[in-house]
Amino acid sequence: MIPRYSRPAMNAIFEADNKFRIMLEIEILAAEAMEKNGTIPHGIAAAIRQRGKYDPARIEEIEREVKHDVIAFLTNVAEHVGDEARYMHQGLTSSDILDTTLAVQLTQACDILLKDLDSVLAALKKRALEHQDTLCIGRSHGIHAEPTTFGVKLAGHYAAFRRAYERLVFARGHIASCSLSGAVGTYATVSPDVETYVAEKLGLAVESVATQVIPRDRHAFLVGVMGVIASSIENFAIEIRHLQRTEVREAEEFFSKGQKGSSAMPHKRNPVLSENLTGLARIVRAAVTPTLENVALWHERDISHSAVERTILPDTCIVLDFALNRLAQVIENLMVYPERMKKNLESTGGLVFSQRLLLTLTQNGLSREEAYAHVQKHAMIVWESDGQKNLRHEVLNDATLGPLLKDKADMIFDYQAYIQQAPLIIKRAVSE
Amino acid sequence: MIPRYSRPAMNAIFEADNKFRIMLEIEILAAEAMEKNGTIPHGIAAAIRQRGKYDPARIEEIEREVKHDVIAFLTNVAEHVGDEARYMHQGLTSSDILDTTLAVQLTQACDILLKDLDSVLAALKKRALEHQDTLCIGRSHGIHAEPTTFGVKLAGHYAAFRRAYERLVFARGHIASCSLSGAVGTYATVSPDVETYVAEKLGLAVESVATQVIPRDRHAFLVGVMGVIASSIENFAIEIRHLQRTEVREAEEFFSKGQKGSSAMPHKRNPVLSENLTGLARIVRAAVTPTLENVALWHERDISHSAVERTILPDTCIVLDFALNRLAQVIENLMVYPERMKKNLESTGGLVFSQRLLLTLTQNGLSREEAYAHVQKHAMIVWESDGQKNLRHEVLNDATLGPLLKDKADMIFDYQAYIQQAPLIIKRAVSE
Amino acid sequence: MIPRYSRPAMNAIFEADNKFRIMLEIEILAAEAMEKNGTIPHGIAAAIRQRGKYDPARIEEIEREVKHDVIAFLTNVAEHVGDEARYMHQGLTSSDILDTTLAVQLTQACDILLKDLDSVLAALKKRALEHQDTLCIGRSHGIHAEPTTFGVKLAGHYAAFRRAYERLVFARGHIASCSLSGAVGTYATVSPDVETYVAEKLGLAVESVATQVIPRDRHAFLVGVMGVIASSIENFAIEIRHLQRTEVREAEEFFSKGQKGSSAMPHKRNPVLSENLTGLARIVRAAVTPTLENVALWHERDISHSAVERTILPDTCIVLDFALNRLAQVIENLMVYPERMKKNLESTGGLVFSQRLLLTLTQNGLSREEAYAHVQKHAMIVWESDGQKNLRHEVLNDATLGPLLKDKADMIFDYQAYIQQAPLIIKRAVSE
Amino acid sequence: MIPRYSRPAMNAIFEADNKFRIMLEIEILAAEAMEKNGTIPHGIAAAIRQRGKYDPARIEEIEREVKHDVIAFLTNVAEHVGDEARYMHQGLTSSDILDTTLAVQLTQACDILLKDLDSVLAALKKRALEHQDTLCIGRSHGIHAEPTTFGVKLAGHYAAFRRAYERLVFARGHIASCSLSGAVGTYATVSPDVETYVAEKLGLAVESVATQVIPRDRHAFLVGVMGVIASSIENFAIEIRHLQRTEVREAEEFFSKGQKGSSAMPHKRNPVLSENLTGLARIVRAAVTPTLENVALWHERDISHSAVERTILPDTCIVLDFALNRLAQVIENLMVYPERMKKNLESTGGLVFSQRLLLTLTQNGLSREEAYAHVQKHAMIVWESDGQKNLRHEVLNDATLGPLLKDKADMIFDYQAYIQQAPLIIKRAVSE
Repeated sequence: MIPRYSRPAMNAIFEADNKFRIMLEIEILAAEAMEKNGTIPHGIAAAIRQRGKYDPARIEEIEREVKHDVIAFLTNVAEHVGDEARYMHQGLTSSDILDTTLAVQLTQACDILLKDLDSVLAALKKRALEHQDTLCIGRSHGIHAEPTTFGVKLAGHYAAFRRAYERLVFARGHIASCSLSGAVGTYATVSPDVETYVAEKLGLAVESVATQVIPRDRHAFLVGVMGVIASSIENFAIEIRHLQRTEVREAEEFFSKGQKGSSAMPHKRNPVLSENLTGLARIVRAAVTPTLENVALWHERDISHSAVERTILPDTCIVLDFALNRLAQVIENLMVYPERMKKNLESTGGLVFSQRLLLTLTQNGLSREEAYAHVQKHAMIVWESDGQKNLRHEVLNDATLGPLLKDKADMIFDYQAYIQQAPLIIKRAVSE
Repeated sequence: MIPRYSRPAMNAIFEADNKFRIMLEIEILAAEAMEKNGTIPHGIAAAIRQRGKYDPARIEEIEREVKHDVIAFLTNVAEHVGDEARYMHQGLTSSDILDTTLAVQLTQACDILLKDLDSVLAALKKRALEHQDTLCIGRSHGIHAEPTTFGVKLAGHYAAFRRAYERLVFARGHIASCSLSGAVGTYATVSPDVETYVAEKLGLAVESVATQVIPRDRHAFLVGVMGVIASSIENFAIEIRHLQRTEVREAEEFFSKGQKGSSAMPHKRNPVLSENLTGLARIVRAAVTPTLENVALWHERDISHSAVERTILPDTCIVLDFALNRLAQVIENLMVYPERMKKNLESTGGLVFSQRLLLTLTQNGLSREEAYAHVQKHAMIVWESDGQKNLRHEVLNDATLGPLLKDKADMIFDYQAYIQQAPLIIKRAVSE
Repeated sequence: MIPRYSRPAMNAIFEADNKFRIMLEIEILAAEAMEKNGTIPHGIAAAIRQRGKYDPARIEEIEREVKHDVIAFLTNVAEHVGDEARYMHQGLTSSDILDTTLAVQLTQACDILLKDLDSVLAALKKRALEHQDTLCIGRSHGIHAEPTTFGVKLAGHYAAFRRAYERLVFARGHIASCSLSGAVGTYATVSPDVETYVAEKLGLAVESVATQVIPRDRHAFLVGVMGVIASSIENFAIEIRHLQRTEVREAEEFFSKGQKGSSAMPHKRNPVLSENLTGLARIVRAAVTPTLENVALWHERDISHSAVERTILPDTCIVLDFALNRLAQVIENLMVYPERMKKNLESTGGLVFSQRLLLTLTQNGLSREEAYAHVQKHAMIVWESDGQKNLRHEVLNDATLGPLLKDKADMIFDYQAYIQQAPLIIKRAVSE
Repeated sequence: MIPRYSRPAMNAIFEADNKFRIMLEIEILAAEAMEKNGTIPHGIAAAIRQRGKYDPARIEEIEREVKHDVIAFLTNVAEHVGDEARYMHQGLTSSDILDTTLAVQLTQACDILLKDLDSVLAALKKRALEHQDTLCIGRSHGIHAEPTTFGVKLAGHYAAFRRAYERLVFARGHIASCSLSGAVGTYATVSPDVETYVAEKLGLAVESVATQVIPRDRHAFLVGVMGVIASSIENFAIEIRHLQRTEVREAEEFFSKGQKGSSAMPHKRNPVLSENLTGLARIVRAAVTPTLENVALWHERDISHSAVERTILPDTCIVLDFALNRLAQVIENLMVYPERMKKNLESTGGLVFSQRLLLTLTQNGLSREEAYAHVQKHAMIVWESDGQKNLRHEVLNDATLGPLLKDKADMIFDYQAYIQQAPLIIKRAVSE
């Protein structure tokens, strides 16, 4: 992934150094377990732990010759450990080390992503409570519908990221799997207690049935969950992009001083962070299908999944981490314009009250169809006046409706009625 | 979905009759709750329950005129209910009814899919136990690796479908959501207790924040889980297709009497069910991306998701239901050929024992590199003899290795060593 | 595909009747060719043409028994033809008939889609010329940029659909392939001249190398082209959805009389057709990946692609046909509001002229950086005044800029300057 | 993209140096054209060409401050050019430079990919001619069908890559587009002749209608074509993986001396290159959907596509270039085992002749159904004997069939009959 969309901590997880550190740790832990069950002499694990080193450049050099990454790693470690090294990796197969290492990396990645989600949730909660009563128009189909508050809007996104959090915790559980069962997963050359020991030390579960590899439905499910998170990011990003439109301008991304909006049009403040989040969401989602295609390995395994995982798994974690952080900042720093929200709300001459008007009419004896016809007629007049006419005025002057409504107008044309439940909705969401 | 890939029970869930039945039930339950909280007069719910009927053809007719499906439905029901109908749907918005109905349909669909998974699991468990000790070769890269048992292979698939089951139960929890919160989800026209009442009666949870619609990350997650299940189906299907290859022939799909394999080659028995499962998996997976794209609705909602959901949601449930049932049958009826498995296992002249040989050599003083070089040399000779030479014979006749190995040959060249843990692996898997 | 998104002519292409009609025609033409080269006696083709009939229901019945669709078809035809039938299909394999039939169906589908594109192009051309000079704001990032005309906007979509047309013509050429080469494509049982004859009669090219089947990269490429067309549809749909937003309202979908916008808010006019087009685009795009996955059939072929093609190929053609027609209607009937366009254009107090202002300043001695700083300062004041201030007034009253600009203001703040090339752009696009 | 899957020439196209070189060239050419039409003074273009330099590190530094990549580039170039720089980029917008640069990069990438395809085609042609008459079994459903030659199999892949070549040439034409039309594409600040001049010098076509950006359906179509190529690569890779299976072993990837197949099983020769190609194909295909999603930019453009293009466009070109080269090498060096092919062919006791047998029987008076029944009976006996029985022997000893067939056996059971058209098929394919 290009540095532009990377953050150091997530990046480090997928760098050679972290990978080899985990691989070495697994070999050491496996040696400890094998010492315990008597498969290898005592002192091996300690020797590896003491003298075991690896040099990514040297490993690459060896790999060019032997064309096998784990053999290259073991050879390099053996160069430092010396004679005891021949007891290392005994009875294990390359996939045991590689797949368990990947499982550790992915749980590390999940932990960062869960923290990222925490930041997003904290920012959303703070802004939702801040704007609990900030009146604005709710829109369906891009068309003004009824009033709501900006806090309620944010609470909806909060709830989506809460679900994201739950799903990621669940998926982390499904990826945190340790497999040390030897060739084709039969434990023919390694006792099951080695796996149990290593799994416990690494905080992983024992793979129930490994077919040499950890089954790829685990990885596909994790990436699937990431894809859903990406779509929720896109959902928020598109909200901001809409609100920042010139005609709407209810909110804007924070615009720093030196920043230039356009080389030709100096005044332009573009929602570039949110647009970028939209694009990053597409990148993350694109990972879902190839990881699904990786599930159907041939027989006990083939290696077709490897190229996908070498590139797409790190990239996806890195981009999602970056996107969640950018999202948290966008939320944190979002500039909100309550006055503009009010102005937009009022721009349709009270049409937003049409449903309350409709309900009042049906509660006062009109059939749904009659009420609908009456209200539609006046609503269309107001709508087509483009802000010049007002629904309250129109219906009160209607020969039929006027008498019915004259005592009820204040009750009907009342914004507060729409947002009285806002505190409840927000509280319910953010305390879950 | 074309009838070829449909089963009646799943099909029925997505037919007009079931949809309108649920919609009517929601309206009735909502009316009950509104009577309780005094919003509407007593007796409305009972009247609707007694006289409420719907006629899909009539609804379609009305919809052609009003171009609105829920209004068409309500109009048709009102034609049967009479005057009380005007209290029906009060304060609700179309999405309240449509989305809660869809949630009910999808939980019904999940329940069928969970039963399907039960059938698959039962079949896999039965056949895994039956073939617990059926010796066969394990393959990596399509190349013979080491012996395993056919039961272990099946247990691996069992474990994958167990995970599928867990994920689907989890996703069912995330889709079982009831939203009756009115336009833009503010409860401005309907009290929250109506939603609570209806949710409880329907066995759903209350949507934490609805933005008029139930948020689409719920649906995307469910379909994502289905995509992973489809990939596990493909994984099994490809295994069978491999095993049925002419050169392998370790297993075959059941071939019924009248069935014709090929219009030109009468003897051919093709793994057509498993090939079909591969194709069906592609169809299910294809649903993942559009449902992810559905998440980012504009503001409180738009209607772009509707076309996708009308077609792809039912199709995906229907195809997955069909595929899981076909899969259960393939497993149940699979013809397994242990003798052929044995023959294939032996076809490489004992090369499958190379790792045990390697380990014995390193345990007897050779370095890993020396042992590897020795074994590789003989292994290549045997491999290139195409079944004419035998590894045991070769190494026992080697000047260096022969003396080292002569007492250990029976121990090394022993199939049982590879499969001694098979009962444990299978038991552990199927009792989870 | 559900009837809601189907049109009869495209639907008919994929119905049993058309399929069997083509299959029978291929068998007859093949028989004619075989008579010519002496493989079968004279009179067979004529007999089949005279008495050859098929009954979809009967074929289905036979298929249930023999589990083979082509044998079922041949058996049914033979029931009508009688003794001569045994010369039918001689030396051919099922895929020869099925794949050539599918090629004919897909070229028929392409022909309809090309006509659909013609309608879209015609509508776009008409409306583009109509609005050649209709001034409106061009937007980047959703933010007002500089003026353009509505005709130019439409011309851009015209150009995209012209490219779509070219690509579909090209893809039609790649799918119009005839394969009659027998089992595994070796012509061992059928002479190449049979294929040549049938291909010519059907207006198809001879498949260069068939591996029993017509290679699936042909189908994948066609569906890929459809996916790009779908995305261009989405591009237009999103434009309309934006223009119809309450705050923008520069255009609206035609709203018919009886139509109801919302069950709760009678005035609402929602861009439901364009939203639907967005959703339909997702459905079409979802077909791309499974057809790509279909390419890698095993060896000379397997049958995994069949399930995908039975469902997704017809559905994709049908939905795309429906979407293109809906699109043509949306364009044809689109209500355009030039006054509102003008009002929006002016809503930013002349900021849209900032680049012309910038250029004038740099042409009159200021460095780019100086000019940018000056213009940005005033632009921000105007921007933040929310329509109260005006850029022309501000800069003319600036101590530094005023004297520089006083003679040039009319030239700078002139909408015509932006749209003088509109006729050229539109003419160039629509006459291509 | 990680270095493991990169080749230098393709990599260089997407490095900063090449990008800035093209950007500078466009600015210079634009200045030349503007000098011609009198917009800017003479000598500017020469000055930029002479002194114009860029320093990626310095540009990055400036970009961190101004947060705008093109302004950063122009500022850096101006630092070298001096005063004349203020005439540079006049009337242009950032997208003009960025999108035309990207178009140049992508045509460069296409040119490399076309050369790659040439290598693949050359290798396939050579090996197809070499194995024109190498007899082997053709398989459908993974099951032996009828004989073919290995050359015919390769010719099929040759034809697929010929189509790939044609499509890529076509797509190159659609991406080779130059847009220099200023903000929102109206030529308000730049004369159309500048674009015409630059386009001609760069070997590009003039964009018919740019909406500030070059429309993204062009990029989506190109990536779609790459996705189909990737699937054809996968198709070949899976063929090799099948042929190299232990039970099949008709071909093997070249296995270099030092290479180690498995850390535990020294003899194993795994088709790792072909498995890798399968995985790389998944990576390339994954690019198709996000580039399709990029098409629907908002209004005249947004910037959501940028993140996708910065990462996925280079990665896709780089991976596809790498994969095509690897593929050419796999083909070039493939080890083919004709004896093993013959052995497999004969392993089914002559069942491969069943269709010829069937045809002979129908040509000698049996109905298709009778013939089918007879042949199926004997075929099943032979099939179930697992190589012990022979179809020729069986039918000649059949009381009914024996007399009918005794003079025709040599003609029926003749491999040459199946492959007599092989030279024609191959010649026709490779000379296209």
